[in-house]
Amino acid sequence: MQAQLIALDWGTSSLRAYKLGAGGQVLEQRALGYGIMQLPSQPREVNGQPCADGFELAFDEACGDWLRAQPGLPVIACGMVGSAQGWVQAPYCATPARVADLSAAMVPVHSVSGVTLQVVPGVVQNSALPNVMRGEETQVLGLLQGLPADSRNDALLIGLPGSHSKWVSVVEGRIVHFDTFMTGEIFAALSAHTILGRTQERSGAFDSVAFERGVQVAQSCDGDIGPLSTVFSARTLGLTGQLPGRAQPDYLSGLLIGHELRSLGEVLRARSKSTRLPEVMLIGNDQLCERYRRALQACEFPAVDVAAQATERGLWSLALAAGLVTDLTDH
Amino acid sequence: MQAQLIALDWGTSSLRAYKLGAGGQVLEQRALGYGIMQLPSQPREVNGQPCADGFELAFDEACGDWLRAQPGLPVIACGMVGSAQGWVQAPYCATPARVADLSAAMVPVHSVSGVTLQVVPGVVQNSALPNVMRGEETQVLGLLQGLPADSRNDALLIGLPGSHSKWVSVVEGRIVHFDTFMTGEIFAALSAHTILGRTQERSGAFDSVAFERGVQVAQSCDGDIGPLSTVFSARTLGLTGQLPGRAQPDYLSGLLIGHELRSLGEVLRARSKSTRLPEVMLIGNDQLCERYRRALQACEFPAVDVAAQATERGLWSLALAAGLVTDLTDH
Repeated sequence: MQAQLIALDWGTSSLRAYKLGAGGQVLEQRALGYGIMQLPSQPREVNGQPCADGFELAFDEACGDWLRAQPGLPVIACGMVGSAQGWVQAPYCATPARVADLSAAMVPVHSVSGVTLQVVPGVVQNSALPNVMRGEETQVLGLLQGLPADSRNDALLIGLPGSHSKWVSVVEGRIVHFDTFMTGEIFAALSAHTILGRTQERSGAFDSVAFERGVQVAQSCDGDIGPLSTVFSARTLGLTGQLPGRAQPDYLSGLLIGHELRSLGEVLRARSKSTRLPEVMLIGNDQLCERYRRALQACEFPAVDVAAQATERGLWSLALAAGLVTDLTDH
Repeated sequence: MQAQLIALDWGTSSLRAYKLGAGGQVLEQRALGYGIMQLPSQPREVNGQPCADGFELAFDEACGDWLRAQPGLPVIACGMVGSAQGWVQAPYCATPARVADLSAAMVPVHSVSGVTLQVVPGVVQNSALPNVMRGEETQVLGLLQGLPADSRNDALLIGLPGSHSKWVSVVEGRIVHFDTFMTGEIFAALSAHTILGRTQERSGAFDSVAFERGVQVAQSCDGDIGPLSTVFSARTLGLTGQLPGRAQPDYLSGLLIGHELRSLGEVLRARSKSTRLPEVMLIGNDQLCERYRRALQACEFPAVDVAAQATERGLWSLALAAGLVTDLTDH
């Protein structure tokens, strides 16, 4: 099948490239380690010219052969590649933001290969404590595209676990509100750079009992004192013989995710003036989504589903809205 | 004046030595960098014998000359020197704990110099999430000794800010309950090892406006979502031009201390079934106590006082209770 679009998901630590055919079908995909903070640095020729620019080198490696095989293919990219530290700065769109707003605000970058990439802007929420995302907006849109047409106008809560997890409220296809939790990055910093790491033993296997114990503590009255205090229990339960070192990493993970979801539930209930929590759709890697799915159930979120292929679908739908591709299946 | 006692405050990162005279008066003091995690490693002679033991070497350096000048002086030590990683393990005393309990549970360690140190035990609280302290119990006792006799039986809340801050409830001279917050160590880990540090600029001067802004955010409805989320605002306020890099460290410090005190206030009110918060006495280094004093006032704690010389007084009072010294001023 002929390719229609090259779509790049270009974040801080990785670069994923997709060759998409008619209707956004994935024909081929690649994952490279060239996030914007770890670009290649070895100069070489690109398009017959010497080149030392890390973005150019990574781009050529990700999809240069696809472009040479089929010249003129449009290219679209989302993620931190559009940040101040990226290849080109694509200014944030403000909430409420919908597909058309984002595709109209894409910023082109002209590569030395003669190819132009369209870079998707991030989204900013100008609340008292502002919030920003880059890349997640595209995944959210992709998730919406994957839903049955009759449910696309419902109110939805979309969770995107990661180093910084995002919780995005979507109403009638618009991103109306979102919150960020630094849970993943805080877990990593506590484990590697505080006293809690000294007694942790890493086995690699997921200890679901320890994880769920952590979630329960965060939800219980012992969790009322908040995570700045409860995290110390990962150490003291160890000191008192109640939590072996090999159980401490997943206990701490459950504790932090439990505090995240407890706080999220409380603010959602206060905002909606209702005790009912919304259904949740998750987007992210399988292992992390599985942790959040377990914790959401323990925190009384009524239903949790996991969405697949959200990034590719989102990039395809933005390219369609911008007229970079046409969707023959619509006709 | 003749010395009566050598008192050591021997923690993880530092060793303080006091030569105390009659009534516990400080005749001389020294601060060394030889915490139990950074002991001297260069072998040399101690008491005429070759010695490679870090505890022996640090002890000799801290007070060997005092002991040679006045042989037979008793020696007492508190802090992490009595932990599993210390010179000798002094098992924890359980709450409720009073002076007499602690002095009766001291553990001797016999140095190669022929001197015996008495090591003060820490305190454990066997709650569902256990809590432990080592060294702070001695400071609490010292603070009680420094109070006017007619107020020693009041209920008191004592705050000990540090890497791990402790909040200790004392009733009639007994440590009845305490909580730990890892605020200081978490602040350091977030600043050095997460994305928040990348935009921080350290000036060295205390930015009280930024600090108090952070405290206010934690106390406000924007703080309802908890510290795992609000800490991201140190970055996003910067990205949106509302918080310069030089203000970010103290904003983050205020935010974390504000969350600590907000949670502390909530659990204290729930425990006492009263909306009134207790008066607070602080023990710690001047700069950190000043941060907590400001934040406590912003968080509606009614009165805050700072205690001096708590460690020396506590060690003197434990030595008295154990009969290592006699207090001529009592007669």
